[in-house]
Amino acid sequence: MISFDEARARILAPLRPTTAEVVPLAEAWGRVTASELTARLTQPPRDVSAMDGYALRAADGNLGATLAVVGSAPAGHPWEGTLGAGEALRIFTGSIMPDGADAILLQEDAEATGDTVTPKEAVKPGRWIRRAGQDFAGGDVLVPAGKRLNSRDIGLLAAGNHPWVQVHRRPRLAILATGDEIALPGEPIPPGGIASSNSHALAALVRACGGEPVVLPVAPDDRATLAAVADAARGMDMFVSTGGASVGEHDLVQSALGDRGLELDFWTVAMRPGKPLIHGRLGDVPMLGLPGNPVSVLICGVVLLLPAIERLSGLPGLAPPVVQAVLGAPLTANDIRADHLRAALTVQADGTLVATAFARQDSAMLRVLAQADALILRPPHAPALAAGASVPIIRLDTLGL
Amino acid sequence: MISFDEARARILAPLRPTTAEVVPLAEAWGRVTASELTARLTQPPRDVSAMDGYALRAADGNLGATLAVVGSAPAGHPWEGTLGAGEALRIFTGSIMPDGADAILLQEDAEATGDTVTPKEAVKPGRWIRRAGQDFAGGDVLVPAGKRLNSRDIGLLAAGNHPWVQVHRRPRLAILATGDEIALPGEPIPPGGIASSNSHALAALVRACGGEPVVLPVAPDDRATLAAVADAARGMDMFVSTGGASVGEHDLVQSALGDRGLELDFWTVAMRPGKPLIHGRLGDVPMLGLPGNPVSVLICGVVLLLPAIERLSGLPGLAPPVVQAVLGAPLTANDIRADHLRAALTVQADGTLVATAFARQDSAMLRVLAQADALILRPPHAPALAAGASVPIIRLDTLGL
Repeated sequence: MISFDEARARILAPLRPTTAEVVPLAEAWGRVTASELTARLTQPPRDVSAMDGYALRAADGNLGATLAVVGSAPAGHPWEGTLGAGEALRIFTGSIMPDGADAILLQEDAEATGDTVTPKEAVKPGRWIRRAGQDFAGGDVLVPAGKRLNSRDIGLLAAGNHPWVQVHRRPRLAILATGDEIALPGEPIPPGGIASSNSHALAALVRACGGEPVVLPVAPDDRATLAAVADAARGMDMFVSTGGASVGEHDLVQSALGDRGLELDFWTVAMRPGKPLIHGRLGDVPMLGLPGNPVSVLICGVVLLLPAIERLSGLPGLAPPVVQAVLGAPLTANDIRADHLRAALTVQADGTLVATAFARQDSAMLRVLAQADALILRPPHAPALAAGASVPIIRLDTLGL
Repeated sequence: MISFDEARARILAPLRPTTAEVVPLAEAWGRVTASELTARLTQPPRDVSAMDGYALRAADGNLGATLAVVGSAPAGHPWEGTLGAGEALRIFTGSIMPDGADAILLQEDAEATGDTVTPKEAVKPGRWIRRAGQDFAGGDVLVPAGKRLNSRDIGLLAAGNHPWVQVHRRPRLAILATGDEIALPGEPIPPGGIASSNSHALAALVRACGGEPVVLPVAPDDRATLAAVADAARGMDMFVSTGGASVGEHDLVQSALGDRGLELDFWTVAMRPGKPLIHGRLGDVPMLGLPGNPVSVLICGVVLLLPAIERLSGLPGLAPPVVQAVLGAPLTANDIRADHLRAALTVQADGTLVATAFARQDSAMLRVLAQADALILRPPHAPALAAGASVPIIRLDTLGL
């Protein structure tokens, strides 16, 4: 049995980012860049006005002066002449500044009469002018490689004139649920059996992490079926099974997959829930065998699969963010296994998070997990703690999974 | 000019949730439930074992006793007899408990020899038995109406035997960028013009909020074109335009759309960036006219569109979460407009957030916005603040947009 930290490190170590593909910018939200993206133009392209008003020479912009309005230059329709002394050009937000002008008279500070205009406030040289390249110059790095694109990045890349983006291909993860007792929702349930939740819960989590789930048919506890289904691992970036990871005599995954090129790395981890956990390779494909309990599956999904999918996606693949909370109720001392307690979270007026572990932590209680706002992390041998003690937590409510 | 808070309230007030549609559970992640979902079965369906081992009568489970192993009941293959005195049944995690048994002898505590088994530890009545309905009983509410489904909810609904889910239809938002000076990325850019970023930045934000963006062709600053394009608003849940919202004489959106049934509600808001902002209805369709500046567009997207899309999706449509940070650098006093300062964020060892506003807050500087981790919220007339003062912020780094 290896430690949780070592298990996560050994799961992440062999993972390599997927190769690049080209997607339209309009479909690039949430994708991870596979190359650095630099500006293909300078923004703004030339000095432009930041306001509606008049371009003029600062020396002419005194209170009460009368200037001749020589034209109008809406954004997108630059005036190509050179502005002379005593002249003003009607301009708008985003209009190119004409040659010769070095000041803006704001519309609300201007008295316009026919073809002349008079400042009601004195202008300041350079004020309200956005300089060429103020946002970025051609060649500037807009987005580095290995960044998940948000809507602000999409806007910046559009402004930098990128219709296409090179991103890492979404990692494809095959998901295999095993067990004679399970049936997919809505299908006939065997006697004493249950509706299968693991495949689709994991598929949702994979999708939420930016991966592409491939849900395999449920495999009965039968060596031949299992082995045949495992062929579906070919071409996947990772193979994830649930059930069959414990040491019972009906736990066939480990033995059945040995025939199909499974190379085991480890098969028990000092964590709760999730102790029976197979890690290895199935041919070229990294393989993770999770326990059958739905709570174990989803918690392993958060603490192990999330960083694994991120690593495959071209990101560093860090552990989910941990913050501190205070305990709303005492905790007993922990044993040898790193524990992940399902907890309710409240926020005090000063922003302090209060985490209270649910009384029932059974790894079959999916409803408790669904109601949990956080996981309280309990390291091996953590001492008993009183209410009010500080503990590390993973916030499920804001994780977006 | 109305206050920012009033503007948001007036934008949200007329919005109604979209109608329901049925989607497969496998595609329901991130969708908002349109009905309460109750369990269609009891989980576990009967008392089951939580471990691998032997089911027996607690009275028989004394240290050193010898019990006859009368059969084996893997999960999914219940043993339908009644267990008698001195008998044990081989069982596994998830196996149905046989009638007559009330205790579990763990596999690791058992000495098995052929067809008998001997406890190496005494058993405790009821220990390691998961009771029928421990997770949920048929009819229990699993997920309420109006909840955005996460991967834990998907698992719970699968376990409750739901192959389909009623969710609110994704709100469809038409997005119209206007301006003679803009061209979509990769298309020929007019003289002095720029690559258009607003449509696709907004589309990404709409998608990130769970909406369905419909990006309309860029509309030149021309009354007829604008009006024709605006016909595309029919059948949409909201119509969002960018540019043309200010008071300049080339700002045609307001006047052009008046011919197409635009009913104006308000057109300036005491906020920065984003002061020129049109709100109204275009026929039956709620309409929001944002300024043309890309920073204004995205900040209005966060503080106004995010809650609007949530409201349309069947959620309450709350303002984005606000937390407290301390200032990394002083701020000057604010004027009459609610300000949203782009800021860098660092986290101190004790978890304190430190927000430092960027020196340049020009609303055309998209790169600064893309680099920002947070928006510092400055209410109207907020006083000057020293470094170290507490300020409300919206975290962009964790908002998931």
